[in-house]
Amino acid sequence: MKIAVYQGQSRQTCIDENLETIRQAARHAADQQAQLIIFPEMFLTGYNIGEAVFKLAEPSDGSAAQKAAQIAQETGIALLYGYPEQAKAGVYNSAIVVDRHGKTVANYRKTHLYGDFENRVFQKGDALVMAALEGLNIGILICYDIEFPEAARALTAAGSQLIAVPTALMKPYCRVAETVVATRAYENQVYVAYVNRCGSEGDLAYCGSSCIVGPDGIDRVRAKRTEGLFVARIDPRTVERERKQNPILEHRRPALYAAPVKKIQV
Amino acid sequence: MKIAVYQGQSRQTCIDENLETIRQAARHAADQQAQLIIFPEMFLTGYNIGEAVFKLAEPSDGSAAQKAAQIAQETGIALLYGYPEQAKAGVYNSAIVVDRHGKTVANYRKTHLYGDFENRVFQKGDALVMAALEGLNIGILICYDIEFPEAARALTAAGSQLIAVPTALMKPYCRVAETVVATRAYENQVYVAYVNRCGSEGDLAYCGSSCIVGPDGIDRVRAKRTEGLFVARIDPRTVERERKQNPILEHRRPALYAAPVKKIQV
Repeated sequence: MKIAVYQGQSRQTCIDENLETIRQAARHAADQQAQLIIFPEMFLTGYNIGEAVFKLAEPSDGSAAQKAAQIAQETGIALLYGYPEQAKAGVYNSAIVVDRHGKTVANYRKTHLYGDFENRVFQKGDALVMAALEGLNIGILICYDIEFPEAARALTAAGSQLIAVPTALMKPYCRVAETVVATRAYENQVYVAYVNRCGSEGDLAYCGSSCIVGPDGIDRVRAKRTEGLFVARIDPRTVERERKQNPILEHRRPALYAAPVKKIQV
Repeated sequence: MKIAVYQGQSRQTCIDENLETIRQAARHAADQQAQLIIFPEMFLTGYNIGEAVFKLAEPSDGSAAQKAAQIAQETGIALLYGYPEQAKAGVYNSAIVVDRHGKTVANYRKTHLYGDFENRVFQKGDALVMAALEGLNIGILICYDIEFPEAARALTAAGSQLIAVPTALMKPYCRVAETVVATRAYENQVYVAYVNRCGSEGDLAYCGSSCIVGPDGIDRVRAKRTEGLFVARIDPRTVERERKQNPILEHRRPALYAAPVKKIQV
């Protein structure tokens, strides 16, 4: 199975224009036989949009989601993109997965909010989410979530073979895209697709460096700082092979981690 | 406080010769005002020595440990080095910490054994260990242990400010030294000192790339592939400052990680 990641900037507050970008990227990805294309965090509206999230947020089955479903049907490729989700309890920083038939197969609400802006406008999601798509188990995390090894571990334990991470990683944290993302793939022996914005948006300068890392911790594809569409083949059998070769996950010792550390004070 | 890491090869099965290498490196490190020097995994005897571990293993207060204590006293610097430890239950892959007065302040037995050789000759340690040295809390891990985020997390939760990792990392796993080690430092906001062998030993070609990484995930010092002594200043206040600036550890959500992942199957 081939998947595509689209590294780019969306236009602030212009949902229809951003849907058009999604349509074009989806078409190009489908032309390359990709079956899933992933977009950055809050791609639908822009990320650094302040209180405008309250005006632009829509339910997971709202008008923009319906248009995205049409794009998926029309281009024949599944979509995963970030957007502000309006729900009863407030607005969430969410990511939605729409399959190639236009059916919503998952919706994840970011569980670790980053910084003043996010904590002011968003509610925290209360569950980790994994979707099955074309026989592939896809765990979803958003940006800051990936910094918590426990979150990727929980998705791995649930059976994820790919962890998809829409993100909005900005300077000076660029090394997260390389070290942390590669480590999550390696330590869990899963694919990680990390899909970032690039360019700048207000006072934020994004890192780019979107990537698809294999279950061996090695980059399958890695963007630089500018816009682009990147495609890589991923194969669940590679996950199995890595785990057979070195069963890291079986070598875990949960009882040891839960036991008190021996503290030696002289 | 300054600490030193010695990246080098020890001579297989020649304990006295390796103690002499320890003495010389300790002296050079003390000359540079380091208060602790860390050596690689199984530095006392060589790592790739097969069944010779059974002949060479000594108790944590054995003859070699006594000689090391004399070196620490004589050079005025604390030592941390790897060695095969003879105990009642068998032989452990251990690391010992001797303070500058020659007093043993900690002994850690590797808890995650790697590969056929280690699993054949060593017993598994049954506790994580943290030592206090000159007011600094030092968690100890050995080589493969660092690949488990849970182990470094447990040491961090116990109050470690530095995690010291004697290792014997070989090709083709060299990227562990960079990505995984830097990630452990970053995600736990602790210093990590990763101290590897270099050169080759039988069929193993070591990666070098020893390093001291700061609680911001940035290398303070990084060796290349050859022998050398590397010194860096570490400061517990930097740990505090990083954690205040971005309280990652407080943002953890243990209940979320323990809850079932929402699995969506269409």
